[in-house]
Amino acid sequence: MEVEFKAMLDDLDLLEKSLSDPAPIHKLRSHVVNLAALSKCNPHRRSKVKELSSEVVDSNPYSRLMALQRMGIVENYERIREFSVAIVGVGGVGSVAAEMLTRCGIGRLLLYDYDSVELANMNRLFFRPDQVGMTKTDAAVQTLSEINPDVVLESFTMNITTVQGFETFTSSLKNKSFCPSKEGSGVDLVLSCVDNYEARMAINQACNELRQTWMESGVSEDAVSGHIQLLVPGETACFACAPPLVVASGIDERTLKRDGVCAASLPTTMGVVAGLLVQNSLKFLLNFGEVSPYLGYNSLKDFFPTMQMRPNPQCSNVACLERQKEYMLAKPARDAAAKAKMEAEALTAIDEGPLHVDNEWNISVVDDENEKDATKVASSSDTLPEGLTRELPDADEYEKAIAIGSGETEEEEDDLEDLKKQLEALNAA
Amino acid sequence: MEVEFKAMLDDLDLLEKSLSDPAPIHKLRSHVVNLAALSKCNPHRRSKVKELSSEVVDSNPYSRLMALQRMGIVENYERIREFSVAIVGVGGVGSVAAEMLTRCGIGRLLLYDYDSVELANMNRLFFRPDQVGMTKTDAAVQTLSEINPDVVLESFTMNITTVQGFETFTSSLKNKSFCPSKEGSGVDLVLSCVDNYEARMAINQACNELRQTWMESGVSEDAVSGHIQLLVPGETACFACAPPLVVASGIDERTLKRDGVCAASLPTTMGVVAGLLVQNSLKFLLNFGEVSPYLGYNSLKDFFPTMQMRPNPQCSNVACLERQKEYMLAKPARDAAAKAKMEAEALTAIDEGPLHVDNEWNISVVDDENEKDATKVASSSDTLPEGLTRELPDADEYEKAIAIGSGETEEEEDDLEDLKKQLEALNAA
Repeated sequence: MEVEFKAMLDDLDLLEKSLSDPAPIHKLRSHVVNLAALSKCNPHRRSKVKELSSEVVDSNPYSRLMALQRMGIVENYERIREFSVAIVGVGGVGSVAAEMLTRCGIGRLLLYDYDSVELANMNRLFFRPDQVGMTKTDAAVQTLSEINPDVVLESFTMNITTVQGFETFTSSLKNKSFCPSKEGSGVDLVLSCVDNYEARMAINQACNELRQTWMESGVSEDAVSGHIQLLVPGETACFACAPPLVVASGIDERTLKRDGVCAASLPTTMGVVAGLLVQNSLKFLLNFGEVSPYLGYNSLKDFFPTMQMRPNPQCSNVACLERQKEYMLAKPARDAAAKAKMEAEALTAIDEGPLHVDNEWNISVVDDENEKDATKVASSSDTLPEGLTRELPDADEYEKAIAIGSGETEEEEDDLEDLKKQLEALNAA
Repeated sequence: MEVEFKAMLDDLDLLEKSLSDPAPIHKLRSHVVNLAALSKCNPHRRSKVKELSSEVVDSNPYSRLMALQRMGIVENYERIREFSVAIVGVGGVGSVAAEMLTRCGIGRLLLYDYDSVELANMNRLFFRPDQVGMTKTDAAVQTLSEINPDVVLESFTMNITTVQGFETFTSSLKNKSFCPSKEGSGVDLVLSCVDNYEARMAINQACNELRQTWMESGVSEDAVSGHIQLLVPGETACFACAPPLVVASGIDERTLKRDGVCAASLPTTMGVVAGLLVQNSLKFLLNFGEVSPYLGYNSLKDFFPTMQMRPNPQCSNVACLERQKEYMLAKPARDAAAKAKMEAEALTAIDEGPLHVDNEWNISVVDDENEKDATKVASSSDTLPEGLTRELPDADEYEKAIAIGSGETEEEEDDLEDLKKQLEALNAA
């Protein structure tokens, strides 16, 4: 539209010269200027922020994230702005993972894909019909920069499995200009969201070479199961340590899928896998909860298997074997560091001082009566904050407790039955 | 912008009358017409479809969903167009659930919310900064209708906990104009995606009265856990059967949350809960897999507890007690139907005919040699489709099988340890 507006202003200039009264032209020109401004403006596009604020106001896009700190889940949420995450494959899982990280305020996102948006992608989240024909990287940058202008977005429209592509891929991972003081490569985590074996092997190769921690994700061709997996070169199995038994050879996997028998996909399964993947990434980056080494998702039975995979000492990947050697060599240092950390923690616990300072044996006498009172207070409704009341009366006030859920014991047994079945299934596997 | 374009054309008309040569005006007019067209056009907005096609072409938005049928996951995917789903609460979970159902091609969506989009919502999926200030229902209809014009969208910008709102809510659920032949109410499923007790109790009341199956969802205030739950009036516990022990009283829960201590939220947890909720809905509506009665999500440990809750015979909700009575009374009919179904299935199995028709005892002699050959073929690589090769050589070809994963037995033990801990935790709870 900009070209059209420019041409129109030029035509008005020409016309003005041939007229005795320039007033109508001035009026027309102001119309054009107005329209050009209107066509560009995006009234609610928010400006960048300098610091993440924890202020609880409707206009703060980070209030609900900074609340994680106040709730004791994350020690320092603001650190998220220092991290760089690379997402390879911006499809059903990768695009949603990118949106989640963008909305979380990640520092920098690197996106890799060579595919274009098609209407056949509309059964998964993220891309819109008006983006059909755009490359997935362009469409993603368009949407993500509108959502959160604070995130630094870098996109690479290319195939990482070609020689040239692989080179660009590894050098982009090595680039440390975003955070020069960072140890190791230029990114904190690589997320694999690709749909074929070849691309996974390329990511595996690059990460093994660069000592780069990465996470794998996948969704089955029948759309009803998926998994995520953490890969730390030398410490866990790499993708080549336990290769799949059957792979495509000679022909493009994408052709295989599309020739009248395309793979099924669901926004639900892909959304869940993306959510589990980014949740695991946040736990890894921000250091909270337990990072899962492997988590499966069987949606037909809502079963979520977990496991751990050690590296294969006979792995076919040379870089993996080097990382394994390094990891073994660093064991004494690792053990010493762990011991020192434990001792430091024990010291801190002592430093916190004696529980009772009024005698040298740190012993104090507890008053029976006071303790009784304390217990009573803790169990009474007086301890609830203002505005909260208990929905059910105290058990003491009634001779008989109100029965909740007629078959509670039975239900618990159901749960135990379930878990026992899971145990048996695992044993059988 | 339309008003501006109109004003400009009027001004050009006026100017034309005062000029001897109309050519420059004609040129300017064509500019304006072009610009007006450009400002309106949305080149890739797709048109509605009459039938869901399973054709594997890039332009078919349903190819990957219809593939569920070809893969044997869903018997009849097209039925999805007959279903109506009501979503109460279009926030972090509800909006994503609505988008997933829209992308799956659900027949009709009813959306209920009275809130507006704020920048503070941008840490969750779906809403965009340019929608700030719009009601959540309007913003959702805008986005969803662009994504899939085939879905019938009905939005209700109102609070279902007011007397008037509750009445509108129940009558909207009863409206059967979309599918007049449908049994029961006018919707197939109600999804509760609200963030407070009062709204859940209102949904519970309406569903108990209307014998309406619904699903509950929730995310914890610390953003790191959530759950979904299936509620079938009379058959499972209703929301009042086991009320929470602490609820807000007298003051608005929303105020409680916002007064300097807003709840934390994460796009990951909410995306996972929305995904599990809609996956359970699809299994329920399209009759595949196992519908989960309750599924929890503890993201810190990636633990997914399941359980079942029977109705409370002393439930405070009168409509629940009525539904329980009906359910008990219908037991003999239910049992008879189940028995008839089992017998019919057994008959069908017999009707499929004898395995061997060449003798009256349905017995045939199996040739030992042939059987051996068959086994051999099945285990050789010859059975792979063209274009596929095994990544690893056959075990027979090597004296020693290649060791995969050095500590496999140990790893399995880790899993057992995990499950044992889960068992213990459940026993302790």
